[in-house]
Amino acid sequence: MKSAHIPRATIQRLAVYVQALEILLQDGENVISSDGLARACGVNPSQIRKDLAYFGEFGVRGVGYYVQDLLAAIKQSLGIDRTWNAALVGVGNLGRALLRHGVFRRRGFILVGAFDCDPFKIGEEIAGLEVVCSRRLKERARELNIEIGIITTPPERAQRAANYLVEAGIRGIVNFASARIAVPDNISVEYVDFMHHFFSVAFNISLNQARNSI
Amino acid sequence: MKSAHIPRATIQRLAVYVQALEILLQDGENVISSDGLARACGVNPSQIRKDLAYFGEFGVRGVGYYVQDLLAAIKQSLGIDRTWNAALVGVGNLGRALLRHGVFRRRGFILVGAFDCDPFKIGEEIAGLEVVCSRRLKERARELNIEIGIITTPPERAQRAANYLVEAGIRGIVNFASARIAVPDNISVEYVDFMHHFFSVAFNISLNQARNSI
Repeated sequence: MKSAHIPRATIQRLAVYVQALEILLQDGENVISSDGLARACGVNPSQIRKDLAYFGEFGVRGVGYYVQDLLAAIKQSLGIDRTWNAALVGVGNLGRALLRHGVFRRRGFILVGAFDCDPFKIGEEIAGLEVVCSRRLKERARELNIEIGIITTPPERAQRAANYLVEAGIRGIVNFASARIAVPDNISVEYVDFMHHFFSVAFNISLNQARNSI
Repeated sequence: MKSAHIPRATIQRLAVYVQALEILLQDGENVISSDGLARACGVNPSQIRKDLAYFGEFGVRGVGYYVQDLLAAIKQSLGIDRTWNAALVGVGNLGRALLRHGVFRRRGFILVGAFDCDPFKIGEEIAGLEVVCSRRLKERARELNIEIGIITTPPERAQRAANYLVEAGIRGIVNFASARIAVPDNISVEYVDFMHHFFSVAFNISLNQARNSI
């Protein structure tokens, strides 16, 4: 299976390509050159050609890429040519914002459950979902066919949320809490840490200032 | 300036190291072995040793790293040994969640302004900040000494938000909107796209299923 070897950095860029290709498709573009796609994505053309080589022969010399075919091939390789049911644990400010965020459904991730152990939050309705006690995750995960868990608890409660999700039989976790979690090896975990983007910006501003003061 | 050459991937991991080192410091740990730090960060020890080599001689053979010195050196190299004033543009669900998120202040990024062009939002108070019309960004940026802009608008309004920030003289932008933005070269831009983490999880689950069905 060729796609088993797609590097992590390529997967990150594929998210950007998917977004750009979907916009092109909406705009009625059938074919895009690698240079054109590179501009739309803010990536250099040789990088795009290298990344897209994982998806077979979609480049046509002198023409470019067929937008629809390329998009379908990337989605299939990533396993996003289907929908995935997800549950969110931790209904704080960030949890609420994500529950109301349209991007998940547009990208094929359907938020079907919202869980929290705070009795003041249980029963509340957010974006059409009723907040349910986290202890009921296992029971609800089967009913709702939940495969992916999203953790948006405070850091000190992230591990407990992970335990609930693992017991409920989910297969992968996206963790927004700023704490490492321990889960069995067969469960895929991704950490969302947006602070490193702030560190990068601060670092680059400092560098520019240092250069200008020489 | 040695830190000018720190690779991007290292900067991403440094955010994780900073977090782990701060917890160690709180717990009163003075020294940590590279293996211990690796475990706390979920990174392999040789990677940590390589990354930390950018920060001079903080490793002591047979002992480990001095937590406080290492943390101070990383923060200084990243330019986060000081505070940075930031303004957020786009007071939607995500914007509100970020304004209320304690992580920014803890990491030295002070949200001093919230901007939106929606007349129904102007004047509203969120986390102690009054929402101000985006047209007033330039005037407020000077008063408040804003250096970093955060964009949390819908995608189609991201470029306009970026234009306001550039006119206001900010030096760097963290863009949470799922749209590319064009800014002058001397302004550092970071894109926060958490969907690629969902793509990675879906990809890994699909792979595991394919392996198990062989």
